[in-house]
Amino acid sequence: MSSEKITVCRKEHFNAAHRLYRPEWSNAKNEETFGKCNNPNFHGHNYDLVVSLTGEINPVTGYLYDLKLLSDVIKEKILDRFDHKNLNLDVPEFSSLNPTAENIAVVIYDLLRKEIEPAIALRITLYETERNFVIYPSL
Amino acid sequence: MSSEKITVCRKEHFNAAHRLYRPEWSNAKNEETFGKCNNPNFHGHNYDLVVSLTGEINPVTGYLYDLKLLSDVIKEKILDRFDHKNLNLDVPEFSSLNPTAENIAVVIYDLLRKEIEPAIALRITLYETERNFVIYPSL
Amino acid sequence: MSSEKITVCRKEHFNAAHRLYRPEWSNAKNEETFGKCNNPNFHGHNYDLVVSLTGEINPVTGYLYDLKLLSDVIKEKILDRFDHKNLNLDVPEFSSLNPTAENIAVVIYDLLRKEIEPAIALRITLYETERNFVIYPSL
Amino acid sequence: MSSEKITVCRKEHFNAAHRLYRPEWSNAKNEETFGKCNNPNFHGHNYDLVVSLTGEINPVTGYLYDLKLLSDVIKEKILDRFDHKNLNLDVPEFSSLNPTAENIAVVIYDLLRKEIEPAIALRITLYETERNFVIYPSL
Amino acid sequence: MSSEKITVCRKEHFNAAHRLYRPEWSNAKNEETFGKCNNPNFHGHNYDLVVSLTGEINPVTGYLYDLKLLSDVIKEKILDRFDHKNLNLDVPEFSSLNPTAENIAVVIYDLLRKEIEPAIALRITLYETERNFVIYPSL
Amino acid sequence: MSSEKITVCRKEHFNAAHRLYRPEWSNAKNEETFGKCNNPNFHGHNYDLVVSLTGEINPVTGYLYDLKLLSDVIKEKILDRFDHKNLNLDVPEFSSLNPTAENIAVVIYDLLRKEIEPAIALRITLYETERNFVIYPSL
Repeated sequence: MSSEKITVCRKEHFNAAHRLYRPEWSNAKNEETFGKCNNPNFHGHNYDLVVSLTGEINPVTGYLYDLKLLSDVIKEKILDRFDHKNLNLDVPEFSSLNPTAENIAVVIYDLLRKEIEPAIALRITLYETERNFVIYPSL
Repeated sequence: MSSEKITVCRKEHFNAAHRLYRPEWSNAKNEETFGKCNNPNFHGHNYDLVVSLTGEINPVTGYLYDLKLLSDVIKEKILDRFDHKNLNLDVPEFSSLNPTAENIAVVIYDLLRKEIEPAIALRITLYETERNFVIYPSL
Repeated sequence: MSSEKITVCRKEHFNAAHRLYRPEWSNAKNEETFGKCNNPNFHGHNYDLVVSLTGEINPVTGYLYDLKLLSDVIKEKILDRFDHKNLNLDVPEFSSLNPTAENIAVVIYDLLRKEIEPAIALRITLYETERNFVIYPSL
Repeated sequence: MSSEKITVCRKEHFNAAHRLYRPEWSNAKNEETFGKCNNPNFHGHNYDLVVSLTGEINPVTGYLYDLKLLSDVIKEKILDRFDHKNLNLDVPEFSSLNPTAENIAVVIYDLLRKEIEPAIALRITLYETERNFVIYPSL
Repeated sequence: MSSEKITVCRKEHFNAAHRLYRPEWSNAKNEETFGKCNNPNFHGHNYDLVVSLTGEINPVTGYLYDLKLLSDVIKEKILDRFDHKNLNLDVPEFSSLNPTAENIAVVIYDLLRKEIEPAIALRITLYETERNFVIYPSL
Repeated sequence: MSSEKITVCRKEHFNAAHRLYRPEWSNAKNEETFGKCNNPNFHGHNYDLVVSLTGEINPVTGYLYDLKLLSDVIKEKILDRFDHKNLNLDVPEFSSLNPTAENIAVVIYDLLRKEIEPAIALRITLYETERNFVIYPSL
């Protein structure tokens, strides 16, 4: 059997509110830069999150990683902290970091990186909407 | 050609924040009734909206209703008022009405009903998430 | 076991070119009425077609209708005649009928109605795009 | 506010194995009737299940029915008994009933009908694949 | 915060007619090579287009690239020229280039490459149907 | 025209039953390792399979590879052997290999690798469910 590395992926989702802005900027500059996403009362999204792990198949189990276990890790470290939350107000990582899709993906990467053994590569794909999504690190 | 009534449908979407609660209730009762949806700092969704019109095909154009025109009506009356908004704080219809999916669908129905001639029946399908959706009036 | 009527559905698809216009109208009037859909050189779609049959479950087989058989009927009567075709030029039913989604759905209904026994009700759902679709007869 | 009945829907899924056949028939007749679905060693599907409830909006909560509660009922009565199971061998309702999509939908209807108050109408949509699905009772 | 490159993606769509053939070939050879896609009267598709940009996050805005701006660029350079068009007859790039999915993707890449600063890598994913799609340059 | 390598993809699907376990392990250890997927009577899935080929566009046809031909190869080598089958009992490759998504993807890769000329790179994406999928070789 051929034996290159394989990637396994688990898709989860969470619903959250956010607002894009920089507090030190004027309203006009925030408006110009972030448009509708700068609404002071927040708006929100159903985020779809795909977590991808790359490594070797364990020849005993046939698994790279138990996706049930991966789902539990994502639930504990990400969903329980982000789902049905206001990212700006309820999630400390964004207290001074603008919750763009790019920054949310990097924060999720950093949170999960500690939970997965170093030999396994990690990648985050985050859909803010069906039409806008980001991949970190890039392919 | 057979000639029963036909239904034409147009799908649009908007992203919004909301919170489910009754202001006159205690925190405990709101929590018990609305669970995670009662987060005081709001959460949000990508709402998918399907507007369905039922009537007769115009034999000259072959249209029941020009879907480009329907899209423009939905944009003006619904999307421009709901998209990237906080439903509780930014949309007057929900200042004293709980923005459940059920109530949002009825409000959208009432707003669009005035714009479509009475001979054409109207139905709203609103997806709060891919897994939770409502249809008004019921089939 | 409860025993109301049931509906079984089969989804197929075809790819076709079309143009919306009335030959006796001026270019200006066709443009005004049909917009981009009036491009004289045609444009096209991936049409998704759902055929729904309603009736009683056969207690011997547990089927209302064998969906493999329904798929074969749709292939012979619709897909072989519409798929990878120009609806205006290649499909006789549209030689003098504007191929709007509404009219295509009615034509498909009429073609399939002859193939399905009268005791079974028939309904056509036709997606011209993910966002524009029609249901005939209406629900 | 207009006040017709509304429908709320919850989508869940389960993965199961099944085989279509009648034990009293010959292999040849089972093969002829059920084709590939008659494989004696079973095959399987990811079933998508949509449960729809129709009734009046509770003006206090703005809910017709708490979809979190509906999800719990579906989990306890359907998913815990069907998911990752062999429908023919593991689910008593199909010990002598052919597990066609039609029959599975009726069985799910009968199981859930007892759990939902009689004033609320119930409908089941069951996707065996993206292309084959059934609706019970019919629309 | 970790700081590798990130990819942001924007999905758009257009509807177009096309025909696959080489004018200098015989009908028989075109038929043999391109099958149903060689219909002389054209057929068509709903093309889904994903444009991916790879680079560094701007630490001030939290954006790699404003997706609203990317959407405007795609609209001006691609959609306004391809949507509701006949690729063979209406789009000069295909006057002597066969509009296969592969060639359409390369043409879109070349058109957008001039609009995006050189430090940002560009990739095109083009879905001709849900089942047939291409990625350029390859991953 | 720019001329890097391109990837073309074809999506197919099959429905199959499987069970995850190691025969030499105790029931308790299989249960602990594979959870619900260890049901002795099997369960099943609708597998979605994406086959990706990477190489150069043939300047004469505009194709990297005729996707109709690729579809035929997948049908003959994979679907005819896996669809509506029990992977453990009906497919020799899994008689002593645990049919995890990872192992199924590698088996499909090895079967198709012989059919595609060596200059063309091959990659398999296999969706066991919408939420669990694998990519081989990894990106």
